[in-house]
Amino acid sequence: MKATTNETHDPALQSWVKSANAAGSDFPIQNLPYGVFRRRGSHENWRSGVAIGDQIVDLAAAAKSARSAFPHEASDALQAAAGHTLNEFMGLGHAAWSALRLALSRGLRAGSSAEALLKHCLVPQTEAEHSVPARIGDYTDFYTSIHHATHIGSLFRPDNPLMPNYKWIPIGYHGRSSSVIVSGHDFKRPVGQVKPQGADAPVVRASQRMDIELELGVFVGAGNALGEPIAMAQAEDHVFGFVLLNDWSARDIQPWEYQPLGPFLAKNFATTISPWIVTTEALAPYRAAPPERPAGDPAPLAYLDSPENGTHGAIDMQLEILLQTPKMKEANQRAARICLTNYQYAYWTFAQLVAHHTVNGCNLRPGDLFGTGTLSGPNPDQAAALIEITHGGKQPITLPNGETRTFLEDGDSVILRGWCEKAGHPRIGLGECRGTVLPARAIQRDQDDRATD
Amino acid sequence: MKATTNETHDPALQSWVKSANAAGSDFPIQNLPYGVFRRRGSHENWRSGVAIGDQIVDLAAAAKSARSAFPHEASDALQAAAGHTLNEFMGLGHAAWSALRLALSRGLRAGSSAEALLKHCLVPQTEAEHSVPARIGDYTDFYTSIHHATHIGSLFRPDNPLMPNYKWIPIGYHGRSSSVIVSGHDFKRPVGQVKPQGADAPVVRASQRMDIELELGVFVGAGNALGEPIAMAQAEDHVFGFVLLNDWSARDIQPWEYQPLGPFLAKNFATTISPWIVTTEALAPYRAAPPERPAGDPAPLAYLDSPENGTHGAIDMQLEILLQTPKMKEANQRAARICLTNYQYAYWTFAQLVAHHTVNGCNLRPGDLFGTGTLSGPNPDQAAALIEITHGGKQPITLPNGETRTFLEDGDSVILRGWCEKAGHPRIGLGECRGTVLPARAIQRDQDDRATD
Repeated sequence: MKATTNETHDPALQSWVKSANAAGSDFPIQNLPYGVFRRRGSHENWRSGVAIGDQIVDLAAAAKSARSAFPHEASDALQAAAGHTLNEFMGLGHAAWSALRLALSRGLRAGSSAEALLKHCLVPQTEAEHSVPARIGDYTDFYTSIHHATHIGSLFRPDNPLMPNYKWIPIGYHGRSSSVIVSGHDFKRPVGQVKPQGADAPVVRASQRMDIELELGVFVGAGNALGEPIAMAQAEDHVFGFVLLNDWSARDIQPWEYQPLGPFLAKNFATTISPWIVTTEALAPYRAAPPERPAGDPAPLAYLDSPENGTHGAIDMQLEILLQTPKMKEANQRAARICLTNYQYAYWTFAQLVAHHTVNGCNLRPGDLFGTGTLSGPNPDQAAALIEITHGGKQPITLPNGETRTFLEDGDSVILRGWCEKAGHPRIGLGECRGTVLPARAIQRDQDDRATD
Repeated sequence: MKATTNETHDPALQSWVKSANAAGSDFPIQNLPYGVFRRRGSHENWRSGVAIGDQIVDLAAAAKSARSAFPHEASDALQAAAGHTLNEFMGLGHAAWSALRLALSRGLRAGSSAEALLKHCLVPQTEAEHSVPARIGDYTDFYTSIHHATHIGSLFRPDNPLMPNYKWIPIGYHGRSSSVIVSGHDFKRPVGQVKPQGADAPVVRASQRMDIELELGVFVGAGNALGEPIAMAQAEDHVFGFVLLNDWSARDIQPWEYQPLGPFLAKNFATTISPWIVTTEALAPYRAAPPERPAGDPAPLAYLDSPENGTHGAIDMQLEILLQTPKMKEANQRAARICLTNYQYAYWTFAQLVAHHTVNGCNLRPGDLFGTGTLSGPNPDQAAALIEITHGGKQPITLPNGETRTFLEDGDSVILRGWCEKAGHPRIGLGECRGTVLPARAIQRDQDDRATD
């Protein structure tokens, strides 16, 4: 458990990168998240960088021209971080992450002697485009909000909303890594088999119930060998950091396909993540106790329990969903907030996800990604998917411009944001995770005919 | 659809590698499967090779010293195939695969002028160890045997064995790529949450119902772009080839965890594949019609249908499971066959798996792996998992030495084999897929105590 703070969290720290000191910045010197980028529209190599204010420290450039500003251990870590994915750096483990973080913090501080060297490594964020920051070996999606599990369960299985295993097992399943895309990459509405209510046979059509799922993505750092579980006491040391994650879902494909082996094509057409990985270490000041389990709920089994987890296993992080329709874009209207929730409500902590995933010996690898599952809170305005917000599509929401929505229409953009803030501490932001639903591909007429035979 | 045969299938072809001409060989010159190997116990680089008789053609060596024996297109393909995984070669597509196959076939034929060059590239199979032959981006497991789905469904859901979607959808779900291991790598019996019948709470213990699932693994060759489905007419062109696959399953972990999102820890601790990928092209002489759908079953929807699929979408391939207990090993007794089935019984063909997987725009990448699902046939001796063979563990099988088994015991080895044969054609074998269940790791006493509170 690494909830301790150190000098890199000092609220008084200011950077010579002036934009990092602005009150509303997601990326003050106390954050220092990692991403992979290049200049937009260029054919430059992808390389890693660290966000600071409205700039990026180009780590490949720093590894070439500014290594003298980094002490030995940090210099080795910098070399590993300078590649076109973060996997190698992630695999080094938390001591190396800490060393580089400290060196970057010192180098970027106001008055640092490294300013002259590092200044030449800055790229403005407005000029950058991003790629998925790691080669994701496996993507696992969990189901850690009991509020979401209960709401959505009651829609799919009215008689049996919460399965008896829910309070014992951090339920998870394997998702698709190939279709994880980075913020700003749009995707086509998926086509698939849907069984309309009362119909005898399924039809093949574009999904009419396109949904959002607001989640956090958890990037695994150092992995474990096959057959060797990770205990709760070490679990957090294996987590590199967090991104926002939108687990786009086709709610009409899902109920017809998901029995008995789980969701498949309803989920694997696209999963959008934000470009900047905010490290577990940067979030240390915002650690919090998980919600107390209601009376009657079982205590976590030993392999899912630790004293530290009960006192600060959670993270107090605000999360919101914003929606912007084509009409709002035309009229230059801001995206409208449709959900404000908090990661702290999760029934299972991220350490518990690591311990559970590996209890059978399953091996995690650097760059593996977990989704937390939809992070709905206990209150209605904390519902983090449209299917919950609209009660299964029955109660449309009205947007500020008078438009209504049950599910997403073509051209709708969804923006996820996340941040930690509290008095006396700088805001630690996750940036944004943005995606737009493009119209579905045309379905050939003969397919249509056959499908509705 | 590439069911056409060409000169590489000529039954009369003989190789100057004499062992390839023996009647029982899995690897005659008409096969030429790809794998990745190095000399056992060495620190050599992993590199690709092609099996011929009891030898391996080292493709890295061939790319260095024997390129003059390969025409232009085959030479480029050879270069791509010479790396430490087959991904790059797989991504080149079927024209390149065919070109290299033809060149290898010509170079390995009795009387070939390339014999002198290629002879220096041979490594005996007995001296080799293997790795997983591709970097598997995503592993998807299907459920294509209606016989298995019905048998196992009746054990998990007696009232509702076959879901209403089964005859419409080639049901699949995402599995774990990190724990795919190659034949000969043993693994520990998994530990996990199990809810004993009648108990109020789950316990954490080593699985007591360790099972086998005999499947085929299908390696994807060229991929597709996100958002662009692969139609049935092109589906087979995207398939590189086949391996044997054992989807080890913990049957006591599965029922407690799998609702509502599907199997997870019951399956992801180990999946064993055979080292040699037998190409789709090598299997052309063994293509067959899929089983006729019983009267009343729906016809496949248009996106899952094609005229060619109905006439030769299947493959007539024999598949067997052999079991060897520690006592049998001590007594030098051969492994005992406990199942003999055929891939031809599958309800869904491999082309249908490709078309379905991508209908929503999901992108496949070179080296992705599909499992066909357990390939049980219609008859009891064709049941391809112990849970089916022993009727849910209620009817033990008796082995030739008098031992009985319901599920696997520690030290038990399972060997899968597969082959195609018919009069007038050489046997095309898949080699073997072998794994041994090692004892579970020790569970800490406090975990045990807590688990049974």
